[in-house]
Amino acid sequence: MNLQGTSIIGNSRGSATGDTFCATNPATRESLAVDFHAATTAEVDKAASLAGAASIAYGATSGKARAALLRAIAEEIEKLGDALVERACAETGLPEGRIQMERGRTCGQLRLFAAMVDEGSWVEARIDHGDPDRQPLPKPDVRSMLRPVGPVVVFCASNFPLAFSVAGGDTAAALAAGCPVVVKAHHAHPGTAELVGIAVAAAVASCGLPEGVFSLLFGSGREVGSALVRHSSIKAVGFTGSRAGGRALMDIAAARPEPIPVYAEMSSINPVFILPGALAERGKAIAAGLHGSVTLGVGQFCTNPGLVMLGAELDASELLGELSQLMSASPEATMLTGGICKAYRDGIAKHSANSNVRKLAAAGATADAFTGAAAVFEADGAAFLADSSLQDELFGPATLIVRHSSREQLHQIASALEGQLTITIHGTEADLADHAELLQILETKTGRLLFNGFPTGVEVCHAMVHGGPYPATSDGRSTSVGTQAVFRFTRPVCYQNWPDNILPDELKEGNPLSISRLVDGARA
Amino acid sequence: MNLQGTSIIGNSRGSATGDTFCATNPATRESLAVDFHAATTAEVDKAASLAGAASIAYGATSGKARAALLRAIAEEIEKLGDALVERACAETGLPEGRIQMERGRTCGQLRLFAAMVDEGSWVEARIDHGDPDRQPLPKPDVRSMLRPVGPVVVFCASNFPLAFSVAGGDTAAALAAGCPVVVKAHHAHPGTAELVGIAVAAAVASCGLPEGVFSLLFGSGREVGSALVRHSSIKAVGFTGSRAGGRALMDIAAARPEPIPVYAEMSSINPVFILPGALAERGKAIAAGLHGSVTLGVGQFCTNPGLVMLGAELDASELLGELSQLMSASPEATMLTGGICKAYRDGIAKHSANSNVRKLAAAGATADAFTGAAAVFEADGAAFLADSSLQDELFGPATLIVRHSSREQLHQIASALEGQLTITIHGTEADLADHAELLQILETKTGRLLFNGFPTGVEVCHAMVHGGPYPATSDGRSTSVGTQAVFRFTRPVCYQNWPDNILPDELKEGNPLSISRLVDGARA
Repeated sequence: MNLQGTSIIGNSRGSATGDTFCATNPATRESLAVDFHAATTAEVDKAASLAGAASIAYGATSGKARAALLRAIAEEIEKLGDALVERACAETGLPEGRIQMERGRTCGQLRLFAAMVDEGSWVEARIDHGDPDRQPLPKPDVRSMLRPVGPVVVFCASNFPLAFSVAGGDTAAALAAGCPVVVKAHHAHPGTAELVGIAVAAAVASCGLPEGVFSLLFGSGREVGSALVRHSSIKAVGFTGSRAGGRALMDIAAARPEPIPVYAEMSSINPVFILPGALAERGKAIAAGLHGSVTLGVGQFCTNPGLVMLGAELDASELLGELSQLMSASPEATMLTGGICKAYRDGIAKHSANSNVRKLAAAGATADAFTGAAAVFEADGAAFLADSSLQDELFGPATLIVRHSSREQLHQIASALEGQLTITIHGTEADLADHAELLQILETKTGRLLFNGFPTGVEVCHAMVHGGPYPATSDGRSTSVGTQAVFRFTRPVCYQNWPDNILPDELKEGNPLSISRLVDGARA
Repeated sequence: MNLQGTSIIGNSRGSATGDTFCATNPATRESLAVDFHAATTAEVDKAASLAGAASIAYGATSGKARAALLRAIAEEIEKLGDALVERACAETGLPEGRIQMERGRTCGQLRLFAAMVDEGSWVEARIDHGDPDRQPLPKPDVRSMLRPVGPVVVFCASNFPLAFSVAGGDTAAALAAGCPVVVKAHHAHPGTAELVGIAVAAAVASCGLPEGVFSLLFGSGREVGSALVRHSSIKAVGFTGSRAGGRALMDIAAARPEPIPVYAEMSSINPVFILPGALAERGKAIAAGLHGSVTLGVGQFCTNPGLVMLGAELDASELLGELSQLMSASPEATMLTGGICKAYRDGIAKHSANSNVRKLAAAGATADAFTGAAAVFEADGAAFLADSSLQDELFGPATLIVRHSSREQLHQIASALEGQLTITIHGTEADLADHAELLQILETKTGRLLFNGFPTGVEVCHAMVHGGPYPATSDGRSTSVGTQAVFRFTRPVCYQNWPDNILPDELKEGNPLSISRLVDGARA
């Protein structure tokens, strides 16, 4: 399939008049064909307006119709075959196996959302029957369910060219909820975006859905994305990226005449707490697991464990020795973009220049502008508490060991942590019994608590919560992974004394969809 | 019970050093004893910090413990007896029967939330069992449920001294969710607030809950409330009041280093669409119902119908004649505060001076600074579309009839509406069949759709949605009335491979609370 390098705006393609940019292969440093054209101001307006116009009809579609769309998108992506894998590998430097696995996850989550909306109970239908004879006032018949919020802007993520991009989790959740989607492609993998965008557009057309249910816009800077978030037709935003980028979108959305929700996944250092019993039992195994998690994908995961808490009084020499050896022996590897690599190297340099931070081990690093080398640092608990910059995310294969001097300091550090996507505990049963208060503090700081595991790898399932308090995300009330992600693009609507024949099927008295509902307060 | 006029800060009372103010009886214009003292900066900090410290222990309480607290609060409020009713009547000018009914609703909703958390299924527990043998990677055991967001600030509403104030819906929802509450009293009914505050504090103490689960702060301006919303211990805000006031709090919350959710209920004109068949069948009855709804409580309800849509081609003389007569004959009545009365009179004057607005009828109005007189105005659809100020809420016993000239203009007006708490349709079966597209547009604009009824009166039940898109509320994903309000103060947390014995009871494998859960995707 030949790339055109132009935006997909409803049923047509954008012009080739906007500013151009092209993708770079980070492994070979070669520029990749073709030139991509940024969407013009008029094209941004057209995509958002088409989404607004389509939102009424698309919001009125049945769960079955949305399930058919989601399944058709998965099929169209699979039909792209090797061309998609090759382009995604070229644009990201990620290995073929990883991209194939990510494609499987992307199609798998589209089908998981399809199954959910096909079944239908996800809308949380509630029925309270009326009572015309109630005194002193009749009781009305009141029924509610979740309905779509309206058009959603989805920003592609640098580090997941498929699973958090054009047809990734936010797009699947928004389409499942009944919301049209306008995607802003990531400038680092526009060809991958165009291929998947063509697949989504084909699925929308083959399902007979209105123009505007899907658009894909290109742009190399912040103009296109900012204009989309400002557009009055847009009602919610999904974003995965840097803290500065996410906060900028939050601020734009909050300053609109009509503020809108922003779901930005931004920054997390995913602390790992290693308790004494676990350290004594399996320090070496924990070191191996940590090394694997820190260096997986050259450390370019939002769940990368960037902080490890260890008691200063503990003999951690086995764990730290093993970890240092494994990190030193890790091969330097290609990162996603030159910008990510520079930020990583700057962060390593900052740690190295910090007199309160000790470098325990580091892999050999060349001066190459696209590769990252693993590193492990150590600091005292007091230093960590005194220097908030040590909580800054360092996106890449590095981690910081913090040695706390007392139980009190451990609790101080736990309380001082910013919001996190994940927090992990390594412990024995005795450790847990001894640290009940710590666990309670940590629960307030994160969306996901893990026990005796490692945070990288996020299971796509019904119970997953990939979210957490700010700055892990902009809105800790939500998850970006798993079927609960559908809720971020919905709002409850209630119907009072509404005639049965025009109620949504989910709320009709006869329950024609046979879904689970809360009827007069009881599950039925 | 003697009023002290000082804030309630955890287990102690605030100082009498801050700025003072007192309440006024709007019916008699007399100042009421005692002087109330605004909380000092140090007291604001202390209340918020105590709430933060209490949030871990209170968040860990069982549903049974929270149910006991909610029921104890209701009992303590009832124990206040006539003293509470007398004070609330004196501070608001509302009649005794209304205050008694509101007290019943307030205690009723506390007990409804108690029943919900006692039963326990509201936490939306989800369990996905693991599979250690899955290839290529083991599947983890993942379990999630809703957990409290942390301390909540609740602002008392001018128009509901009990049901949307110290122990009103937001406080009940927050305490049910497991969140400590800091209430900012309304300056117009501080004595009512102190009485209820004493009741809540007594309940917290009798239930053996930690200091800081509840505080009540006084203040006459915006300083105390703004400082609370800025405080780092505060994690969410509930507010009912003006659009300007709510937006100011939204802007403060969005600008924090850690932005937090604000649930502000602000402004709604609650459009009523009267379709041709309904007009022909029962125009006079609709007029009577409209009059009752517009003038109920001197029009001081957020669900007051301030806009009525009628086709220009229809003979509406019977409806308009009856409505005009009823409105003219309505007695002028005491409003809640001088400020509300002035805003209402200014709005009436603005309509009267607008050459595109015709005054159909008005009750006789004296120059009194505390009374409001009913009025009904009329404008053409084109004028309404051309003048966005005609969508501004006019808080008081007035409504605007808009005569649309065509189906196209009707749809334009529906599309141009701002977000609403309620939208009402009066129609026959044939009307509804003929207006399917209108209904689809209107659904995107509101939290509650009513059929052949009137929007005032909000049933407290499981399915109620008292919310809607901006500016009806700051966050259309939520309701402030009914049990679904609990969700606004929660966030999902998941536990991966977490040992069964330290999982919350709601997620333990044996389901010791016997709650409804989603297990491996199926309701169980």
